[in-house]
Amino acid sequence: MKMSSLFVRTLREDPADAELPSHKLLVRAGYIRRSAPGVYAWLPLGLRVLAKVEAIVREGMAEINAQEVHFSALQPREPYEATGRWADYGPGLFRLKDRRENDYLLAPTHEEAFTLLVKDLYSSYKDLPLALYQIQTKFRDEARPRAGLLRGREFIMKDAYSFDIDDAGLDVSYQAQRDAYERIFQRLGLDYVICAAMAGAMGGSKSEEFLMPCENGEDTFVRSPGGYAANVEAVTTVAPAPIDYSNIQPAQALHTPGTTTIATLVALANEQYPREDRAWTAADTLKNVVVALTHPDGEREVIVIGVPGDRDVDMKRAEASLAPALVEPATEDDLKKHPELVAGYIGPAVLGPNAGEGAVRYLLDPRVVEGTSWITGDNRVDYHVYNLVAGRDFVGDGWVEAAEVRAGDPAPDGSGPLEMARGIEIGHVFQLGRKYADALGLTVLDENGKSRVVTMGSYGLGVSRAVAALVETHHDEHGIVWPIQVAPAHVHLIATGKDQSVFDAAAALASELDAAGIEVLYDDRAKVSAGVKFTDSELIGIPYTAVIGRSFADGVIELRDRATGERVELPADGAAAAVIEKVRAALS
Amino acid sequence: MKMSSLFVRTLREDPADAELPSHKLLVRAGYIRRSAPGVYAWLPLGLRVLAKVEAIVREGMAEINAQEVHFSALQPREPYEATGRWADYGPGLFRLKDRRENDYLLAPTHEEAFTLLVKDLYSSYKDLPLALYQIQTKFRDEARPRAGLLRGREFIMKDAYSFDIDDAGLDVSYQAQRDAYERIFQRLGLDYVICAAMAGAMGGSKSEEFLMPCENGEDTFVRSPGGYAANVEAVTTVAPAPIDYSNIQPAQALHTPGTTTIATLVALANEQYPREDRAWTAADTLKNVVVALTHPDGEREVIVIGVPGDRDVDMKRAEASLAPALVEPATEDDLKKHPELVAGYIGPAVLGPNAGEGAVRYLLDPRVVEGTSWITGDNRVDYHVYNLVAGRDFVGDGWVEAAEVRAGDPAPDGSGPLEMARGIEIGHVFQLGRKYADALGLTVLDENGKSRVVTMGSYGLGVSRAVAALVETHHDEHGIVWPIQVAPAHVHLIATGKDQSVFDAAAALASELDAAGIEVLYDDRAKVSAGVKFTDSELIGIPYTAVIGRSFADGVIELRDRATGERVELPADGAAAAVIEKVRAALS
Repeated sequence: MKMSSLFVRTLREDPADAELPSHKLLVRAGYIRRSAPGVYAWLPLGLRVLAKVEAIVREGMAEINAQEVHFSALQPREPYEATGRWADYGPGLFRLKDRRENDYLLAPTHEEAFTLLVKDLYSSYKDLPLALYQIQTKFRDEARPRAGLLRGREFIMKDAYSFDIDDAGLDVSYQAQRDAYERIFQRLGLDYVICAAMAGAMGGSKSEEFLMPCENGEDTFVRSPGGYAANVEAVTTVAPAPIDYSNIQPAQALHTPGTTTIATLVALANEQYPREDRAWTAADTLKNVVVALTHPDGEREVIVIGVPGDRDVDMKRAEASLAPALVEPATEDDLKKHPELVAGYIGPAVLGPNAGEGAVRYLLDPRVVEGTSWITGDNRVDYHVYNLVAGRDFVGDGWVEAAEVRAGDPAPDGSGPLEMARGIEIGHVFQLGRKYADALGLTVLDENGKSRVVTMGSYGLGVSRAVAALVETHHDEHGIVWPIQVAPAHVHLIATGKDQSVFDAAAALASELDAAGIEVLYDDRAKVSAGVKFTDSELIGIPYTAVIGRSFADGVIELRDRATGERVELPADGAAAAVIEKVRAALS
Repeated sequence: MKMSSLFVRTLREDPADAELPSHKLLVRAGYIRRSAPGVYAWLPLGLRVLAKVEAIVREGMAEINAQEVHFSALQPREPYEATGRWADYGPGLFRLKDRRENDYLLAPTHEEAFTLLVKDLYSSYKDLPLALYQIQTKFRDEARPRAGLLRGREFIMKDAYSFDIDDAGLDVSYQAQRDAYERIFQRLGLDYVICAAMAGAMGGSKSEEFLMPCENGEDTFVRSPGGYAANVEAVTTVAPAPIDYSNIQPAQALHTPGTTTIATLVALANEQYPREDRAWTAADTLKNVVVALTHPDGEREVIVIGVPGDRDVDMKRAEASLAPALVEPATEDDLKKHPELVAGYIGPAVLGPNAGEGAVRYLLDPRVVEGTSWITGDNRVDYHVYNLVAGRDFVGDGWVEAAEVRAGDPAPDGSGPLEMARGIEIGHVFQLGRKYADALGLTVLDENGKSRVVTMGSYGLGVSRAVAALVETHHDEHGIVWPIQVAPAHVHLIATGKDQSVFDAAAALASELDAAGIEVLYDDRAKVSAGVKFTDSELIGIPYTAVIGRSFADGVIELRDRATGERVELPADGAAAAVIEKVRAALS
């Protein structure tokens, strides 16, 4: 590769639409180029990185005997209809019609296609376990495509699927993929945290996400000093033990004018009804939040979620808890249909089992344990009730994980207080179970000749996203700093000045390195200043830069390490051997 | 690869929808599987062949310094609107809308995207020449997807594009691609004929197709003993020299009742108005065929094409000649609007310049040269005119290449009589010229600082189609016969019987071959008969089959050559070395 003919242009300015370092740098250094919102073209340098990432992913898949296949992005509607995903995916799915008006989609993932393919070929328990995968271009009609390769409308994914006769087999397959992901991310040079996740809309039982910790990440997760990590949606609340409430005073309605917020309620309580032992806090209040669910059949249901007043309802957690229903704040229309819900003064008496048949459903945060005592609404304007005790004065219809998770909350496994972190999802492993096999009739005969529904796992790894994730954590203020195993070349060779002997020596060194299998990007441009060449080289981010310039007359070549900034002088004689040794050591 | 775990199922029966050998065999041998009409999944064996074909294509592109990039299939409408292709492509284009109702398409080729990318990055004549390519999945909504991979709605293509400052540069770039195609097809083991073609709807000036001769091919082409070859649409007619007509009798209208066809006309002529020297033939009559053109602006025009009565109008040739208009036979409605056109008796007198202003356009076959004398319609029922001499009694508005091409016609370059052949298009090279650069504003500054429109070439090679084309010409009644350079493995190793020592020896041989870089598909299936294994092996078509079976007890291993059927016995001791040598020799 010679810079004089390589199809690349570096930019000194950040692209206007870019916010994240990976987006800015991949465009500025000439790896990718925008074709349409969320749609990118890969330039030669980018394609080289992508190919190396793909090779590492393939190696990891081969090690667990996953076999590669390839599906079309264009898939017919029917199988996705059978599993419900045609509708479930909503506006995120690209749908189209062919000339005969048949419905097709551009597959966001291929669970259905893989299930049908295995059904087509296999029929016996002897054929299992089976692991298949593809590296393929996927399409999702993102509402706000942004962040370059991190959230595009077209992206490259490795999606693998496992097929087993029973749950024990699925556990083994799942673990094998999980282990393979760890190896792949380690080889790529990507940090990761394995977070418990909700299986959510995919159906299935167990699910974990591989998140790369990164402050620009759009996923929030939590972790504890003891090693617990989870997606915020998957965090389970540590419920306190029940409290003996035999000595608690009876509930008492009190006048609390103008206290439609927790803040005003607490202030009034401390002023007019102070406690002796300590001040009232928001945590002493029970906040009843009205939300609207939309069930898969389209039915809209208004429910109330009771949480301690010092926490908000986290809609994403509520939705994960209440899947497959969609969750949103109740609208004025919703409230009009329920005059018993008095805004600012809603209390348990009109909710769920406390109110009898026909009352709105009432779900409680796990902290509202038996014996806890609350200040909460009395269902009339300007009145709240004090000392309302859970289990004595009210109950819920059930529990819900809907309250926000906060730093300092205890990890559910007792491994210490949680801290909040942000990350980029780079992989996701799912135990799908039998949802897809059931819907599409994938069965095999077991050893007794009996038909058994196959159980499946699904394992996604963002290949183009990994390229961006690498840049997100491997860059500095001057540009990208590629790990050598994914760099577009091993050595960036720069000839400076106008001296022909310098260019001759550089060309000779490039040939020597090339013959040894070392990948070289040779900046052979005449009439381009050394400064511009160095700036480009730092932006492009190849691990080693060899400079043949002024000091070549003294028999010296300079070798720079992009990551450490270290510069060493090599005798021009034998420089090739030294560079080869250095690169081979780094690669091994 | 072990047959016991390889994701493959061979079929004994042809799939119901398959007609061509490549379609039948690729499905039966477990290389591909249908997902939807014209949409296929690649199974592991198929993907291995595809990867080898892609590697050969990449090698060929690298040799001419074409640089690889990659575009999304999803492309916005606007650039295709600017070049007119959004409309021109008609129902063959998959169109879709995103969630904001913006129009997108699944690109059938990427001329527009490449043009814009180069415009985005380059601005000077110094940046040229440039050759870029991608290997990418393309989509076309075929009216009748069939023939497996040969005509699918989703397929993999290598599309390359060249960019030059001037026509001379384009000629050089075009020739480089053409040469690269020759090398690639030779390495793939694909026969090809380079046929002159019409540039057609792509615009541009020069175009050639690479056709693989094959009787099942859907393209017809012609070739001469002297080496001329052309797509039928591109054949130019050898016009005879003008004839001295001074001694020809004046034209004479004669009564020819009931002669609305050439056959009845010739029969009546021979019966009632016989020639002295020889019998009248269809070639003595001038047939005037009414066709309807649809111009790009939607206007419909009725014209008449005059051809010797022994030839039909070939609608595809007419359309190529009259592009960008679409051509179809005139309908009854068309004829009603032209009462002067008397069906069965149409003659030049009412056509074109012979009839004056407002007459329908009259285009003539080049054989209707000055001085030729014809029997043709007299524009009233039951009358024809004899001795109507071209250039004396009538003229046309111009010439048209619309008459069918027939075996025995002279090649236009004088290289002898043409023969007809059928083939599969495996490559197509185009000089696009400035159509796309003009439409999308791709200019560079020349050495004088003047803005110049870039001239382009476009070079397509069907990658998935090449896989099918290979099978189409490399198979026998038992299955596929892969050339070794694209085979999914080099050696198909079969262990037969129930003797554990046979399986142990086979496993050891597989390891030895694998360590030497020889690719082995090892049929390790227990409880599968030798007959089934041999049948599968012939169907799958790997070049060498090594059999370890009954004769292994006598220290003998059999090596079969799939192509020649040759079988040799190898001493089990040292068999690995012998096989390695054989494979390496075949690969080199």
